[in-house]
Amino acid sequence: MRKTSAHLADGREIVYFDENRPERRPEELADPRDLPPVATGSEVRFDPLLREWVVIASHRQTRTHLPPTDDCPLCPSSQGHNTEIPVSDYDVVAFENRFPSLAPNSRPDLDPIGELEPSRGPARGHCEVLVFSSDHNTSLAQVSPQRMRTIIEAWVDRTTALSEKPGVEQVYCFENRGSEIGVTLHHPHGQIYAFPFVTPRTRRILASAEEYRARTGGDLFADILRTEQEAKVRVVAESEHWTAFVPAAAHWPVEVHIQPHRPVPDLPALTTAERADFAELYLDVLRRLDALFDAPLPYVSAWHQAPVRQGRDLARLRLELFSVRRAPGKLKYLAGTESGMDVFINDVAPESTARRLREATP
Amino acid sequence: MRKTSAHLADGREIVYFDENRPERRPEELADPRDLPPVATGSEVRFDPLLREWVVIASHRQTRTHLPPTDDCPLCPSSQGHNTEIPVSDYDVVAFENRFPSLAPNSRPDLDPIGELEPSRGPARGHCEVLVFSSDHNTSLAQVSPQRMRTIIEAWVDRTTALSEKPGVEQVYCFENRGSEIGVTLHHPHGQIYAFPFVTPRTRRILASAEEYRARTGGDLFADILRTEQEAKVRVVAESEHWTAFVPAAAHWPVEVHIQPHRPVPDLPALTTAERADFAELYLDVLRRLDALFDAPLPYVSAWHQAPVRQGRDLARLRLELFSVRRAPGKLKYLAGTESGMDVFINDVAPESTARRLREATP
Repeated sequence: MRKTSAHLADGREIVYFDENRPERRPEELADPRDLPPVATGSEVRFDPLLREWVVIASHRQTRTHLPPTDDCPLCPSSQGHNTEIPVSDYDVVAFENRFPSLAPNSRPDLDPIGELEPSRGPARGHCEVLVFSSDHNTSLAQVSPQRMRTIIEAWVDRTTALSEKPGVEQVYCFENRGSEIGVTLHHPHGQIYAFPFVTPRTRRILASAEEYRARTGGDLFADILRTEQEAKVRVVAESEHWTAFVPAAAHWPVEVHIQPHRPVPDLPALTTAERADFAELYLDVLRRLDALFDAPLPYVSAWHQAPVRQGRDLARLRLELFSVRRAPGKLKYLAGTESGMDVFINDVAPESTARRLREATP
Repeated sequence: MRKTSAHLADGREIVYFDENRPERRPEELADPRDLPPVATGSEVRFDPLLREWVVIASHRQTRTHLPPTDDCPLCPSSQGHNTEIPVSDYDVVAFENRFPSLAPNSRPDLDPIGELEPSRGPARGHCEVLVFSSDHNTSLAQVSPQRMRTIIEAWVDRTTALSEKPGVEQVYCFENRGSEIGVTLHHPHGQIYAFPFVTPRTRRILASAEEYRARTGGDLFADILRTEQEAKVRVVAESEHWTAFVPAAAHWPVEVHIQPHRPVPDLPALTTAERADFAELYLDVLRRLDALFDAPLPYVSAWHQAPVRQGRDLARLRLELFSVRRAPGKLKYLAGTESGMDVFINDVAPESTARRLREATP
């Protein structure tokens, strides 16, 4: 795997992760477009009721929305058609989002707005796009194990690089898949956010791990994993270094957590063997998910990594994948109970989902 | 307003709130249907990562899903067509849901499933449907002020009645409106849930109010209200007893909080004048919301009331209304950042939403 860094016409960084290609020549990396600088007027505001930051990104309303395939900004560039990726072919590419919610130079207009306390500021941070393949019509479930390993290396590289940027407190690698959850570009890709704060969900999970350690002396994540391995009834797939299971209190009709057997804080801490093993297991799980309803499953796949500075002794690397699909043609909506009161009502028993995923033929 | 209680064929309670009708005769209240008893196999499970209860209600997958209008179970019954409401006309009706997520007699199969701790149980509680009008094609925004006052009386009555039931810790009155958020019955109606626990969102808000009181000596809700009244920039509508405003850190593209000027814990604590005043103000706000995009706005409207036992000195009655609509034809989806990490990204500035709602012509 060879890594090559370059810059797009407006100065954004682009990083190529090439598997078996000759060294990139400067002329193929050049971006011939005439792009205006990225305008970033985002701010963060603190909600005093929920005590969490909200990103107000009003400049993003005009972002690209489901362009026709021949306008896809994530396809390679070709004669007369310049995309976000100047080269004519690539394996895996990461680049800074042209419509970022968080940006290092965010300079919003911060006139007084009468907030309760001095509790707003520029939305500093980083938003990157990670393209999984140059093939517009494939999906992450369909890539080769080698490609999945390259994607893992890209996640590791971006986690390391973004963790070193000033003010970054948490790096979040994730994939949104399917128009059912609002995906606006169908070319297979994920995203990487570098947040200037520890996210509310991570803070809650860290508080739970801390409370559990104080109460029992144990490691919450290790004890959940052991319990699932022993119970077996919710395990979807197992390998030497990883276990995939449906959590006992799953919030979503389809939900799978994938956890390494060795407790590590983040993706860079994984060994080569653990990375290779994950590539195989994750492909197996993704293919089972698509087989569940005989159709591409819309999902969110979310890497939980330890924050950059806080709670690194408590937090554990884990992947949480969940879907809004509850049956063919039916979606789970977050309405009054979920979005209003955070009470999730799951119409599917976790044991049933696990059994169906075990039986699904990828 | 006259209240009449009766029972449906399977024993569920139904309560009529009639405005100017003769006393209900027993024969019109009789439900001639042959209904099987309500089967309730729901359970609650405790998620050790987020430390919150999840309702597993796998028997609900077969519930009524967008029936044709002439099959609407919320319309009055007519010759040869028996609905959930036996009478031939009504004003406002509350009845127990035939497909409840929570039920007082919930008896799930609780075989061992290998959960981390003894942390599951039957999903005890109550789920009621509150029908706002016998007119299938109207909406809450279109009812008369008298009808809105009757609906408030129904909320008050059900809150009082459900709070007295064994094991109920929080009563939650809400409305889901629009197929965009998964509403399966279009007849104008809301729902009332009586939870056997204090909801996660309420616990978080109570913790914030407690922390704020300890730190500043002040009342968080009163200080937010005063700040919004002074700032004016996010106020949508004001009356003698209520203020409607877009919160400074709004999570949703359209979000309005409505708060009484006098701090009260719940709906039953409102005076007659406060109830009448709310009826007028809420109708005004709902009509502005529908005028925003010249189309019925999909929304969740959520009454935050003090729990039955806990935190009653801290909690304040407030209504939170929010929408997934971010532009005509465009929805806000909860994907990787929101559902994965609880970081909301709002593409619309709260001050802009407030200004547009003030300028909207209902």
